[in-house]
Amino acid sequence: MKRYETLAHTIADEIRHGNLAVGTRLPSLRQIIAQHGVSQSTVFRAYYLLEQWGLIRARERSGYYVAPGAQAPAAQHADRAAATRKVDISDLVFSVLDAATQPGIVPLGSAFPSPQLFPLQRVAKSLAQATRQVSPWSTVVDLPPGNEALRQQIARRYLATGVSQPVDEIVVTNGALEALNLCLMAVTRPGDVVAVEAPGFYAALQAIERLDLRAVEIPVDPRTGLDLDALANALEQHDIRACWFMTNFQNPTGVTLSADKKRALVELLAARDVPLIEDDVYGELHFGPDYPLPARAYDRHGLVMHCSSFSKTLAPGYRIGWAAAGRFAEKVQRLKLMTTLSASIPAQAGIANYLEHGGYDRHLRKLRGALHAQRERMDDALRRWLPAGVDWAQPEGGYFLWLTFPDAIDAMELHRRAIARGISFAPGPLFSATHDFERCVRVNFGHPWSAEIERAIRVLGELVAEPGVRKSA
Amino acid sequence: MKRYETLAHTIADEIRHGNLAVGTRLPSLRQIIAQHGVSQSTVFRAYYLLEQWGLIRARERSGYYVAPGAQAPAAQHADRAAATRKVDISDLVFSVLDAATQPGIVPLGSAFPSPQLFPLQRVAKSLAQATRQVSPWSTVVDLPPGNEALRQQIARRYLATGVSQPVDEIVVTNGALEALNLCLMAVTRPGDVVAVEAPGFYAALQAIERLDLRAVEIPVDPRTGLDLDALANALEQHDIRACWFMTNFQNPTGVTLSADKKRALVELLAARDVPLIEDDVYGELHFGPDYPLPARAYDRHGLVMHCSSFSKTLAPGYRIGWAAAGRFAEKVQRLKLMTTLSASIPAQAGIANYLEHGGYDRHLRKLRGALHAQRERMDDALRRWLPAGVDWAQPEGGYFLWLTFPDAIDAMELHRRAIARGISFAPGPLFSATHDFERCVRVNFGHPWSAEIERAIRVLGELVAEPGVRKSA
Repeated sequence: MKRYETLAHTIADEIRHGNLAVGTRLPSLRQIIAQHGVSQSTVFRAYYLLEQWGLIRARERSGYYVAPGAQAPAAQHADRAAATRKVDISDLVFSVLDAATQPGIVPLGSAFPSPQLFPLQRVAKSLAQATRQVSPWSTVVDLPPGNEALRQQIARRYLATGVSQPVDEIVVTNGALEALNLCLMAVTRPGDVVAVEAPGFYAALQAIERLDLRAVEIPVDPRTGLDLDALANALEQHDIRACWFMTNFQNPTGVTLSADKKRALVELLAARDVPLIEDDVYGELHFGPDYPLPARAYDRHGLVMHCSSFSKTLAPGYRIGWAAAGRFAEKVQRLKLMTTLSASIPAQAGIANYLEHGGYDRHLRKLRGALHAQRERMDDALRRWLPAGVDWAQPEGGYFLWLTFPDAIDAMELHRRAIARGISFAPGPLFSATHDFERCVRVNFGHPWSAEIERAIRVLGELVAEPGVRKSA
Repeated sequence: MKRYETLAHTIADEIRHGNLAVGTRLPSLRQIIAQHGVSQSTVFRAYYLLEQWGLIRARERSGYYVAPGAQAPAAQHADRAAATRKVDISDLVFSVLDAATQPGIVPLGSAFPSPQLFPLQRVAKSLAQATRQVSPWSTVVDLPPGNEALRQQIARRYLATGVSQPVDEIVVTNGALEALNLCLMAVTRPGDVVAVEAPGFYAALQAIERLDLRAVEIPVDPRTGLDLDALANALEQHDIRACWFMTNFQNPTGVTLSADKKRALVELLAARDVPLIEDDVYGELHFGPDYPLPARAYDRHGLVMHCSSFSKTLAPGYRIGWAAAGRFAEKVQRLKLMTTLSASIPAQAGIANYLEHGGYDRHLRKLRGALHAQRERMDDALRRWLPAGVDWAQPEGGYFLWLTFPDAIDAMELHRRAIARGISFAPGPLFSATHDFERCVRVNFGHPWSAEIERAIRVLGELVAEPGVRKSA
């Protein structure tokens, strides 16, 4: 039994024996740490378990209390083996995100590559040109599904990779994040079960939490990707209503599913009529010669909703993404109308103008080369500064590396100490509803190499050896 | 009993007596019309009722079927008096919105004023300037709550009206629509009851439908506004978790709550700690000398979430709005981060630049004058072409007029015939979950006066006299 589980059981017993009455405030973090000699993250995880078991409840800004009914004989531990769960990830994510945007922090925990890699002045020129030309009436006509020229440019890019994508199934959104959220809303109802990756993009977990869905986590191997057997089992066991997967240069592991596995994935889901929400925001950032075709390319039933954007490849702040939403396109479009009406019209027109005249493919080649070179530098630095036994795969695109340390480390404690030294990393527990992956850290190599980044990796190597970060085996 | 209710009961009896078995497809619209000699909208409403009663179910693109369990003795009519209800408004709204954006249609059913009234070239200049100056790193820093300069400009405008609004409670959004939706999400859970206006903005009903909430409709008088006694009663009877009201130049009636009523509203809600989501997108379009202060101005508890935008006053396509979300600001900000991350950064910077240098107040004075003059022209035309007994109030701002006809008219039939003659109106049933207000029509006077608009009003006068539109008393 892990330390936090032991702690949870100890507190659960106190509640059941009436030592902690219903309505009692639980001891503060500080008290528990002093009393039990455990780390803050152990307490955090223990409280998380107790909350899952229905024994305690959080009140905003005032701590945890023993829940009504906690002492009733019917109060049961939630079965750890119960594979679907309600999700509670946001506090963790927001505290890490907040820290990562502090000025002066080396942003290795950031979700974006350096904006200095983007031709922002050239895109601004397109924006200015397009806005001068835009018809006032476009505010009416460009309501969802979005600016026609932009949608045609997007469809043309699909076609260039060999994927025939009807323009009228493309809904322009406020970045891929909105596309993914709308697609999820389009195919689920509160209480539904959704398959996500573990480790996986925390936005999926946040969306599931927000929409009162339940997540079943499918393991992702950093070298081979999604475990299709585990997915097949999960489809047997649960009434899964949607999958939300990242098939190319996955966040956080960087892994890409092979073409064969993508085809098998599409067939597996088609057999059960389960929609796939495919997040492909990193696909264009391939280091090899060709774009790895997404699962969408193998879909014959309109079941794959392919979501992407220009935020990771061209113009992060413009917030222009899209969903190629197959048979769900009309529903996604309506949800878009109801929630945000339309993406910014000048931004849409500006990106459309850039795609036509700005040299996007030339820029992409340059960007891929830069990221590839930065991965090499990062790889060198990691070899130089990290202790033996740390494992990572070499992603063939994107800008994330996933480190797995040989011994358990307290990833949250590592995060705190790194921030104190001016560096952010994305700790592994961010990428799972169960806060597993405590031996893992996501590192962003999307920033031009610098002495500061070199120093950050050296500090990472120091921190993981510190007592309080490295756990005794 | 109304005709559609009679029809619904007739069909319900056939289902209960087993003449229509579970799973049977209901007769087509055409068949029912021929068989019962009723109008299409009567069938529509009857099916709506039957669906509410749980007796029939729609399948996408294939019509209505008798629902499982419809013949069980437990199948009860929903109580018409049950004052909270699940909402099903979207099909109606989308069919009307689709029709209103057809090219060549005189857009008196549109929700926007004419974009020709906006200084789009001047705003485009600000956009181009701001985008050239924007720091690449703003994509990180301007994550919610949004561009700092813009938020300060917004706070300054509050202060100019005498309202002290902390900058850090202002969250920039993709238009007011997103602000309203995020605020609603921030304070409700599925199943919660929300008070809305009747007639009211259909987006509130759509949001309630989408989030699995229940609506209780509070009557709005076109001359005096929201019925506060009815609201007080509703607060007694239901566990209302939020109100979504438009206090200035309300959509669709154009009515403004007096300062006294706004103060009373705020006090009524504060006594029960019920948050108010205040939609104030038309407030700046006042014809009198002063901006009518919103309910937010009387709030001392951070309970009023004041939502507005630049979409109705300056730059519809930019999709820049905000929520001044009081004590819920952090939650709204997090929801924004989770769903769309950020509003378009160039658009935010462009609007901020315009507010600083573009002459917004001068533009607003001109815009108010134009809308005021258009209201006069509309009023004249309505007097000239509509039959005696049609009632409307003179709104003191905004660009909506709410017509109430003396006899029942089939507003949906009116809508169809108007579209056939190249004109759109917004039929009354759009503005209520119960599809009431069938004697009402919303008219947009936000377009520069023209012979076409004059003709449109003349045609409206003709259509309401036609048999099939005008109902026998």
